[in-house]
Amino acid sequence: MEDRFDIAIIGSGPAGLSAAINAKIRNKKIIVFGSRDLSNKLLKAPKINNYLGFYDISGVELKEKFKQHIDHLGIEITYERINNVYAMGDYFALMVNDKMYEATALVLATGMESSKLLKGEEEFLGKGVGYCATCDAPLYKGKVVTIIGYNREAEEEANYVNELAGKLYYIPMYRKDMKLDQNIEIVNDIPVEVVGEDHVQSLKTKKGELTTDAIFVLKDSISPAQLVPGLAIENEHIKVDRNMSTNLKGCFAAGDCVGRPYQYIKAAGEGLIAGQSAVAYVDSQKNK
Amino acid sequence: MEDRFDIAIIGSGPAGLSAAINAKIRNKKIIVFGSRDLSNKLLKAPKINNYLGFYDISGVELKEKFKQHIDHLGIEITYERINNVYAMGDYFALMVNDKMYEATALVLATGMESSKLLKGEEEFLGKGVGYCATCDAPLYKGKVVTIIGYNREAEEEANYVNELAGKLYYIPMYRKDMKLDQNIEIVNDIPVEVVGEDHVQSLKTKKGELTTDAIFVLKDSISPAQLVPGLAIENEHIKVDRNMSTNLKGCFAAGDCVGRPYQYIKAAGEGLIAGQSAVAYVDSQKNK
Repeated sequence: MEDRFDIAIIGSGPAGLSAAINAKIRNKKIIVFGSRDLSNKLLKAPKINNYLGFYDISGVELKEKFKQHIDHLGIEITYERINNVYAMGDYFALMVNDKMYEATALVLATGMESSKLLKGEEEFLGKGVGYCATCDAPLYKGKVVTIIGYNREAEEEANYVNELAGKLYYIPMYRKDMKLDQNIEIVNDIPVEVVGEDHVQSLKTKKGELTTDAIFVLKDSISPAQLVPGLAIENEHIKVDRNMSTNLKGCFAAGDCVGRPYQYIKAAGEGLIAGQSAVAYVDSQKNK
Repeated sequence: MEDRFDIAIIGSGPAGLSAAINAKIRNKKIIVFGSRDLSNKLLKAPKINNYLGFYDISGVELKEKFKQHIDHLGIEITYERINNVYAMGDYFALMVNDKMYEATALVLATGMESSKLLKGEEEFLGKGVGYCATCDAPLYKGKVVTIIGYNREAEEEANYVNELAGKLYYIPMYRKDMKLDQNIEIVNDIPVEVVGEDHVQSLKTKKGELTTDAIFVLKDSISPAQLVPGLAIENEHIKVDRNMSTNLKGCFAAGDCVGRPYQYIKAAGEGLIAGQSAVAYVDSQKNK
């Protein structure tokens, strides 16, 4: 297939980028799914002292160094949110709303979501609470939908869902200029609790309560187990061996999502291994 | 004991330095054994493109970045060659000729020696061939000793042994100004084969043959199994788990010595883990 990539990398933090540069240097056809800021976690770091080679550097500055590195190698980031990945045997199918990408190998570098769950969030998961607004949007045609967005990518999902929903509330969990359709109601408040009986009925916030049929929480990283059905998880992290191989053939993982310590150079080191392992896997498939 | 260190780190390549900065940032009393050039392997790298954050950088330039980083944190390198390490239960004893250092935890970042063995080297090991000249020097009082030196640290050993030996040949395997005692004979030749019957009798070189009672091969890195008796090895590398723990309590390892790929940022990432694991171990010992 013409459009098939050798390696798809999900995540643009240090692990994903390190995998990307190693695959690119080895002439592989890669696609990297990530965000404009590369890593929100990195962006928020005031000072980093333990990334060997850089000291007294801010997260923003280190992000800029990473950006220069991938730019130098001609690596671009695709700003799309993968909803699901399916292992098809000899390739992976990556779903983005109604689009699909194919790749021979997969590197998961999705990070680790550290923010707490809302009260009631887990209880109502699948009963009005969801993590992929665009996937479930058809269910809420003409209804009231609330999106809790943790980054700018969530705005695109909001605009997409807004075409179907009857009413859309958007609660931004960050401070930035938003590019939202005019009829989306921005709620500058802090979500507290999901309320309902069999199904979501409302979202309690610090200042009030929103009556809503659905609540989508769109965070920086997606739970890998939800993202890739069949992926083995151990102690809340993706289970990997020393080559960064997961239990799925051709699927590798690196960075915070495979375990502590949650540190940049640990992630970058693992990203290198995952990237090189993915390259070796792709080569072995081609030589079959 | 007053002179006991919290953490001793053997090796000053990316793994050792990354362990060092992480231990130092956490206020641990550390000692790092290494070389003036930090890493001979790094020094020889013409161009490095896959250390995320730096591109198109030479090994010498990257070494300089590392140097600035440790200087900034006030980390010094001790230019001594550890001959043996003994696990004493609640601490490690590190032997340097007639000196001893004590440390609660140990991080091995000794790298991987890639140069080939000489013909006959293995056969005559312990029968005139050795890897620690100063350890065995008393055996060769007044006799002829040949040292094959791979780095400048070997010169110090040569000068030390020279005080006891009757005659000392020094074969430098590098190109640098040497600081050797005047009566040491420098042989600019390439060693080829160890010759003898029950014991070493001579060293064949490309251009000739040296009659000698002992041959010491002093390379950049020491075999970890020889260095630390009891250390578990798997496929020629130190066996570690995901926390970089070895089979010996309080002993951690990182970098090339724990396995492939032999890459700088992989080593630095593992060094971070080993350093932080060693810190946690030291803290757990103090709180006992």
